[in-house]
Amino acid sequence: MPDLQRIIDNIHAELLPQLGTGKVADYIPELAKVNPHRFGIAVATVGGGSYFAGDAGEPFSIQSISKVFSLTLALGKHGDALWSRVGREPSGSSFNSIVQLEHESGVPRNPFINAGAIVVCDAILAGHRPREAIGEILRFVRSVADDDTIAIDPAVAQSEQKTGFRNVALASYMRSFGNLLHPVELTLGVYFHQCAISMTCRQLARAGLFLANGGHMPQTGLTVVSRDRARRICALMLMCGHYDGSGDFAFRVGLPGKSGVGGGILAVAPGQASVAVWSPGLDEHGNSQLGTRALQLLAERTGWSIFG
Amino acid sequence: MPDLQRIIDNIHAELLPQLGTGKVADYIPELAKVNPHRFGIAVATVGGGSYFAGDAGEPFSIQSISKVFSLTLALGKHGDALWSRVGREPSGSSFNSIVQLEHESGVPRNPFINAGAIVVCDAILAGHRPREAIGEILRFVRSVADDDTIAIDPAVAQSEQKTGFRNVALASYMRSFGNLLHPVELTLGVYFHQCAISMTCRQLARAGLFLANGGHMPQTGLTVVSRDRARRICALMLMCGHYDGSGDFAFRVGLPGKSGVGGGILAVAPGQASVAVWSPGLDEHGNSQLGTRALQLLAERTGWSIFG
Amino acid sequence: MPDLQRIIDNIHAELLPQLGTGKVADYIPELAKVNPHRFGIAVATVGGGSYFAGDAGEPFSIQSISKVFSLTLALGKHGDALWSRVGREPSGSSFNSIVQLEHESGVPRNPFINAGAIVVCDAILAGHRPREAIGEILRFVRSVADDDTIAIDPAVAQSEQKTGFRNVALASYMRSFGNLLHPVELTLGVYFHQCAISMTCRQLARAGLFLANGGHMPQTGLTVVSRDRARRICALMLMCGHYDGSGDFAFRVGLPGKSGVGGGILAVAPGQASVAVWSPGLDEHGNSQLGTRALQLLAERTGWSIFG
Amino acid sequence: MPDLQRIIDNIHAELLPQLGTGKVADYIPELAKVNPHRFGIAVATVGGGSYFAGDAGEPFSIQSISKVFSLTLALGKHGDALWSRVGREPSGSSFNSIVQLEHESGVPRNPFINAGAIVVCDAILAGHRPREAIGEILRFVRSVADDDTIAIDPAVAQSEQKTGFRNVALASYMRSFGNLLHPVELTLGVYFHQCAISMTCRQLARAGLFLANGGHMPQTGLTVVSRDRARRICALMLMCGHYDGSGDFAFRVGLPGKSGVGGGILAVAPGQASVAVWSPGLDEHGNSQLGTRALQLLAERTGWSIFG
Repeated sequence: MPDLQRIIDNIHAELLPQLGTGKVADYIPELAKVNPHRFGIAVATVGGGSYFAGDAGEPFSIQSISKVFSLTLALGKHGDALWSRVGREPSGSSFNSIVQLEHESGVPRNPFINAGAIVVCDAILAGHRPREAIGEILRFVRSVADDDTIAIDPAVAQSEQKTGFRNVALASYMRSFGNLLHPVELTLGVYFHQCAISMTCRQLARAGLFLANGGHMPQTGLTVVSRDRARRICALMLMCGHYDGSGDFAFRVGLPGKSGVGGGILAVAPGQASVAVWSPGLDEHGNSQLGTRALQLLAERTGWSIFG
Repeated sequence: MPDLQRIIDNIHAELLPQLGTGKVADYIPELAKVNPHRFGIAVATVGGGSYFAGDAGEPFSIQSISKVFSLTLALGKHGDALWSRVGREPSGSSFNSIVQLEHESGVPRNPFINAGAIVVCDAILAGHRPREAIGEILRFVRSVADDDTIAIDPAVAQSEQKTGFRNVALASYMRSFGNLLHPVELTLGVYFHQCAISMTCRQLARAGLFLANGGHMPQTGLTVVSRDRARRICALMLMCGHYDGSGDFAFRVGLPGKSGVGGGILAVAPGQASVAVWSPGLDEHGNSQLGTRALQLLAERTGWSIFG
Repeated sequence: MPDLQRIIDNIHAELLPQLGTGKVADYIPELAKVNPHRFGIAVATVGGGSYFAGDAGEPFSIQSISKVFSLTLALGKHGDALWSRVGREPSGSSFNSIVQLEHESGVPRNPFINAGAIVVCDAILAGHRPREAIGEILRFVRSVADDDTIAIDPAVAQSEQKTGFRNVALASYMRSFGNLLHPVELTLGVYFHQCAISMTCRQLARAGLFLANGGHMPQTGLTVVSRDRARRICALMLMCGHYDGSGDFAFRVGLPGKSGVGGGILAVAPGQASVAVWSPGLDEHGNSQLGTRALQLLAERTGWSIFG
Repeated sequence: MPDLQRIIDNIHAELLPQLGTGKVADYIPELAKVNPHRFGIAVATVGGGSYFAGDAGEPFSIQSISKVFSLTLALGKHGDALWSRVGREPSGSSFNSIVQLEHESGVPRNPFINAGAIVVCDAILAGHRPREAIGEILRFVRSVADDDTIAIDPAVAQSEQKTGFRNVALASYMRSFGNLLHPVELTLGVYFHQCAISMTCRQLARAGLFLANGGHMPQTGLTVVSRDRARRICALMLMCGHYDGSGDFAFRVGLPGKSGVGGGILAVAPGQASVAVWSPGLDEHGNSQLGTRALQLLAERTGWSIFG
């Protein structure tokens, strides 16, 4: 599909003049140091194609995109029992809101807001030490990306640990309701390290391919999850993947996606491709501004929207 | 596609023993009179096929499903300007919640919760008398269903008008913020009549076909909306079509849909078909219990899920 | 007590340079027409003394101060049964918030926020036509003020009726929960007329005297309410009389009081005196800015604080 | 005042049959061990009188009553600057709600809900080590009670520290807004120890006497705070001393008071007396059920209500 490379090149070129708009995340000191003038796109197709533009080979902090991988892992370990501890509904609130937890007895709305992702980490931690749980998440990401060089950025992990008071609040709050089974600092240790995984757009696009391909990795033929589970993870990404901007993303882009405050977005075109974009400037909901626009153009020009 | 008829027949037969579970809506006296032992399924494919089972030919009150048609009509009249008066995000609250309006200056979260649909009616009312606006909505529904026998049930409309205090509250509240341009009773007159449209599953499935077919009616070749708008209406249906049960519906069914408290659901399988189901027993979010299960089985057996 | 006159004169003189600060209520067109440079003080002591300064003889719209009189009247008719329909707790929210109603099944937090006062009017309306209920409230105010010239300003009443959408929302909302027994427009008719009562500071100070004097009018010897009820009305005024500025008023002034958006405040010094102040400029909670300061100085200089 | 002893004896005798109703606090394991059949009353008058009945000499965990003393201490150190970090309004929510913090940028509504008291402890901690701050609070309580035997119960302090996840959440949340200046565990160390102070009703009644006596200790002649500050602390106790049951307490009792989940209440009759009651059974807001009734009867029979 030679067109795909041209489409990506054109999108990159058209959006380049807008580079630097949006606001780089500054609530974690390490993230604030990132060069705002970065912009990368990578597409991996289920047919084995691989296309990229711009800074697609530069690693960035995937942050909340990691929640897709840890959810997949936790579902593999606990199955649907996980859903007694975390819901599957859009939250209607910002990513770190605590209000909903008070109204709903410490059960987070979905696994992609911070509180929900902390519960997911707590579920992965069961029977393990934090170091082991972190290792397990990292190994899983490496395996679906088919790339053993992927690593955690220790400076980012430490930076999160030092300043993540709001996450401590969320975790302690859920623990007061009995919805966290391990000491807060252990579960958050896992969470902060998971968020600090560094990946390039190329690695990320490959890592998401099993979701576009009915649960199988086309690269290796390995089955990661059942087709049904792949679908449902995509459904959750569409409904909840962009916090209180999820509706707008579905409306404009029409693809399941998950954003991170590092400026990355992983999007899935079922049956077609996995796409990763990265540009650090964020919109008011904490989603990459240029990344969203790039995905909107890509969906328009490829016809990949899941809505027909 | 002879299989499709068999699939529907099987689903109908399998679920029939569960008939009568769930709770029939009783907040409008007229709706409470409906026989809970009704269950119909109709499928209209973009290729012209038409399949049905059970009570697919019996008319029922479409209630909130009408919001899909009035939104389509209002977008045709006002275009994207409509989005300054109503949002596009899931609400995270029940269908008649007023809390969010107070926190967000009288702008409803989306056009499918009551407050949002009232704003849409207010937009359609612009420059018209209520009777004309109601006529326009009814004519639009008749045209997309290609069926001039569709009518409004006056008993239901009156019943709503007499007991709809909560909708009066929502409308008055938005008027206090200047987000309702007509007197409350006029706008609600339109709204209550729209909700009282009666349709059969067969009519409803036909009426939704333009959304499955890129904006065109395959029956007549008429273009109702652009492909892009059809997609976006589907995106809104998926994100917000089932109130605070939208996430669960997307997770289990994986199709854009819109439910009504009359027990109907309209679902769209882009590029494939439009589906209408009806069974009056509702779950705790106000969505048809049997209808949801029927759609889940249908999506599983046809592979129509938009998530691959 | 010749000192009292001097104290009042001094306070009036000291605060006069600040006249015109604060924001005149503009949400009712008629109120917006008031001259912001008005400032009156009147004190009526239980011993029969009467002191005033500034514009104490000029009538103004008492607005929410009327809620003290209608509550007294409703308690006389219904006794403690009234408390099943309205609470006795500070709301923590603004005067016209609807959020709390949704969370607490349509029962307003207290009788001095709008929703609560509407319920009180609904209770007074029982068995009457609106015109009669309005007449009853007006007669009651005239009797406790011992002044038959007190009247309702029809222009203000009409102005409220035309623009009071938020109050329609509150009333309709409570009606949907069954906590309003009459049609919304009838109950609000009573409410809007009650708020439109016009009084001077002198009249208002006299009208509050029974609350300072254990339920008896020292002027006439008449018993209006029992000592116990007088105390409890004062308790409610202290806790809830200034909306979400009640805590600050108690902290600074230390007297039970009730404010109105017309710029008036009625304060009670138990066993001592009743005080009325008026100045139209409001603070951010909707309470008279200069009026509050005047009462703070008065409490300091007389030692009337109920807190010792 | 020989009557006062008889009044107290009668109240004690009348209420004794109701002993054991209400629910003993169980969220801290150590508190759950308390014998629910305890009931003590102590009154200390500004004239030097001292009256008691029942278990007035048995120590109990004063819990949130300690917040009155730490607030007094913090105001002495920081003056009105403290009010930039904590509000003075009733919260309208339960004692450990976190919702309000999210809506108001981490500034608690008042110093008597948990979040507010934690901020007060943080202010006392400034420039100290936790051990010193705890010592300072204990010394202050001993000095106003004129009794050096008062101590902290280490088992209760430890019990709180082990299970206080919700307080960790509140503190971490405020730290994320910059409204906590010390590490969460240090500030909470102070808070948990303060709550674990053990006192008898007799000691507590004496300790509150300065608030009833214009800021001076009648026992020793010492000035603890200015008359104005004593008044304002009383105002805060009235407005916020019983969480979301404050309105009801003011309505029924009419005295400034502060309750603790250990079942104690300290009430102040300005110019008259300080009263301490204790009975572990709590009502639904977390306030001593029998203690509240005892205070209601006492206020009725002495005429001490601040509302006349």
